[in-house]
Amino acid sequence: MFMGDRIAYVIYNTPQQDKNLLYWGHFDAPDPFFALTVGGRKLAFVSELEYGRCKASSTFDEVFLRSDVQKRSVLAYPQGTPWSAFFRYLQQQYAIDRFVVPNDFPATVYAQCYQTVPLGFDAAAFETTRAIKTVSEIDEIRKACKVTADMLGYAKSILHHSTVHNHQLEYEGSVLTSERLRTLMEQYGFNHGACAEDTIVAGGEQAVHPHHRGEGPLYEGQLIVLDCFPYLKQSGYYGDMTRTVVKGYAKPEQMRMYQCVRDCQQALIERIHPGVLTSDLMQFALDFFERAGFGLKQTAMGCEGFIHSVGHGVGLGLHEYPSVGAQAIALEAGMVITVEPGLYFHTIGGVRIEDDVVVTPTGCERLSDYSYELCV
Amino acid sequence: MFMGDRIAYVIYNTPQQDKNLLYWGHFDAPDPFFALTVGGRKLAFVSELEYGRCKASSTFDEVFLRSDVQKRSVLAYPQGTPWSAFFRYLQQQYAIDRFVVPNDFPATVYAQCYQTVPLGFDAAAFETTRAIKTVSEIDEIRKACKVTADMLGYAKSILHHSTVHNHQLEYEGSVLTSERLRTLMEQYGFNHGACAEDTIVAGGEQAVHPHHRGEGPLYEGQLIVLDCFPYLKQSGYYGDMTRTVVKGYAKPEQMRMYQCVRDCQQALIERIHPGVLTSDLMQFALDFFERAGFGLKQTAMGCEGFIHSVGHGVGLGLHEYPSVGAQAIALEAGMVITVEPGLYFHTIGGVRIEDDVVVTPTGCERLSDYSYELCV
Repeated sequence: MFMGDRIAYVIYNTPQQDKNLLYWGHFDAPDPFFALTVGGRKLAFVSELEYGRCKASSTFDEVFLRSDVQKRSVLAYPQGTPWSAFFRYLQQQYAIDRFVVPNDFPATVYAQCYQTVPLGFDAAAFETTRAIKTVSEIDEIRKACKVTADMLGYAKSILHHSTVHNHQLEYEGSVLTSERLRTLMEQYGFNHGACAEDTIVAGGEQAVHPHHRGEGPLYEGQLIVLDCFPYLKQSGYYGDMTRTVVKGYAKPEQMRMYQCVRDCQQALIERIHPGVLTSDLMQFALDFFERAGFGLKQTAMGCEGFIHSVGHGVGLGLHEYPSVGAQAIALEAGMVITVEPGLYFHTIGGVRIEDDVVVTPTGCERLSDYSYELCV
Repeated sequence: MFMGDRIAYVIYNTPQQDKNLLYWGHFDAPDPFFALTVGGRKLAFVSELEYGRCKASSTFDEVFLRSDVQKRSVLAYPQGTPWSAFFRYLQQQYAIDRFVVPNDFPATVYAQCYQTVPLGFDAAAFETTRAIKTVSEIDEIRKACKVTADMLGYAKSILHHSTVHNHQLEYEGSVLTSERLRTLMEQYGFNHGACAEDTIVAGGEQAVHPHHRGEGPLYEGQLIVLDCFPYLKQSGYYGDMTRTVVKGYAKPEQMRMYQCVRDCQQALIERIHPGVLTSDLMQFALDFFERAGFGLKQTAMGCEGFIHSVGHGVGLGLHEYPSVGAQAIALEAGMVITVEPGLYFHTIGGVRIEDDVVVTPTGCERLSDYSYELCV
C-alpha cells in the first residue's frame, strides 16, 4: 500500500496532562477530549458540556460535538469498534494518510484501532512541538521567574530574620521547619499570581536526595536547598529556580562545594549557544566536577556527586523538551532551558543552583535573576 | 493455554496523573514511574533520582531501581523489545498469569508488549480502586469541604460588601470582576492550606455554560455561580461545592429556578443510600425538573435545562468513580459523591448547587456545610 504523507497528529487527553493540547487550543477542560491537527488546521471533538465554551473561546479552527461525529462514524463504518470507525471516518473526511499519536496515547484506544487504522507513534514530533518559544512565551517565563525570585527572596529574608536556639531556627517565636517555610513561600507566590507545589526546602542530609521536599526543623550551619517552580495562574507558564543557603556560618568544605557548583553553572551558561549539544554540556559538567575533586562515586549510601542532569526545557510544562542530559540534542535559538548543576555528598550535604535561560542567536540570555550569596 | 488468575495490576504514570499510583505508594514524583500490585504487594520501579526517597518514605512494599531490573530482564529475555523483556521477567519473578493495565496506559509500551505478554485492560478494576473511602479519607474530604465553604463564605462577604455603580459591582474602590473575585477566593484558600484552580465565578450569560470560569465585571441582579474545588495541600484530598447568588434583588423567575434546584438537591440527598442506582438519581433529577416546568429543550443556542450529570465521586481525584449520571452504578456505603443539580437557560441564567456526601449504611451524611441564601 502506498503510504502518503498527509499526517494527522492526534491527542486524546486533558490539556493539563498533555500541554500540547493546551498549546493547540488555548483551552482548558477537566476531562479528556479528542483533538487533531492536520494540514495546519486544529480540530477539537468535545462533549456537549464543553462545546459552546470551546467554540467561543478556544483557538481550535473547528470544534465538533464528539457524539455527533461518533454517530456518523458508526453509520459509515458499521464494522469494527466504535473507535476504529471514528478514526476511519476522520481519515476519509480529511484525506488523512496516517495518524500519529504520542507515546502516552491511551492504550485501550490504540488496541481498538491498530489493526484497521494506520496509526503510529512519533514521540519526537510531539515532544518538540513547544520547544521553540515565541516572544510572548519568553515574556511569560520571564514573568514566572520574577515571581520565583521573589519567593526565594522572601524565603531568604525569613531565614535571615530567624534566630537560633540550640542550633534550631526559630521565626516569629516558633520553630522554623521546612514545611513552614515552604508554606510561607508558596503563599507568597500565590498572593503574587503564581501557584507553586512541592517547593523543596531541604536541609542537611535531606538535601542529598535531589527530590526530597524537606521536613522537620531547619538548623544553622547546614546547607539548605530551596528549589522553587511555580507557574503563573493566568498563563500557565513555569519558572524554575534553585538557590542554596546556610544560616550563620558555612564550613570551608560547604563553601568550596558551593563555589564549585556556582563556577560550573557560570561556565555552562557561557557555553550555551545554538548548535551546542546537550550531551556536551552534560559531559562538561561531569568533567568540571571530576577535575575539582567532586567526581561521581559509588558508596554504601548510593551514588554521590553530580547525580542528575544539567537541566531541562521549561515552558507550559515544568519538564519539557529538550532534556539537557546524556542524550545529544542540538540547542536552537528560542529554546528555554534550566541550568542546574548540583553536588550531593552525605558528608557535606547538597548544593544546587538553578537558573533559566533562553538560547539566542549568539549565546543565551538569563530569564531568571537573583543573587547568589551563600550565607543568610 | 491455561490462564491462571494471579493478576498483576500495572501503572506507568506520574502519581499526579494517576491518583491510584499516589494511593498505592503515598509517594509523589514529577516523572512517570512503573509500579504494580500483585498478591496484595505493591512494587515500585524507579530511577536513581527517586530510589532513596521512595525506599525511605513510600508505602510500597518493595522498591527497585528500574535500570537494574531492566538490565536483568534483557539478559534473561534477549529476544523482543526491552519492554516485553521487562514484563516477561516480572512475570517469571512473581509467578504472574496476566497483567492488567488502565485504559490510559501508554500505548507505545502496550504496542511493544501485547504480542508476547499477556496484557489486558480492566478499566473497572482501576476506576473502582479508591471508590470506598476509609474513615481517615472521609475526614480529609470533610476538612477540604470546610476550607471550600470558607472560600465561598469569603466570596459572599466580598459580594455583600460590594457597592453598585451603574449596575456594576465595586469592591474597595475598584470594579469587582470574576477574575478578581476568583483570585481573592483562591488566595484565601491557599492561605488556609488548600489549593484551588479554575474556581468558577460566572455571572449572567456566562453561567449558562457550566464550565465557563467567568470573566469581566460582575453585575447586580444576575445569577452568579460560585463553584469551588480546592484540594488540601497536605493530603491531596478535594472538596467540591457550588453556590449560586444574586447581588441585590433576584427576579421572580431567578428565585423560582433557584428554589427548584435547591428542592431537587434536597430530594436527591434524601434518596441516597446503599444500593440506589446512580442512573435512577439522574432520571429522578430529569423528571423533577421536567415536572417543575424546567425540562430539557433544544434551542438555537444549544441544549438548555439540566445539561450535565447529578454528580461524581470525589477524593484524591476531583472527578472519580462513581459518576452519577446515565450509567447505572449501585452506590455503596463509603462512597463519597457530589450532588450538584443545575439549570441553565439563556433567558434566566445558570443555577447550580453542589454539596458532597458520604454514603452511610442507612443513607448519606453531608460532608460539606454552608448556607443557601440566594441574595447577598
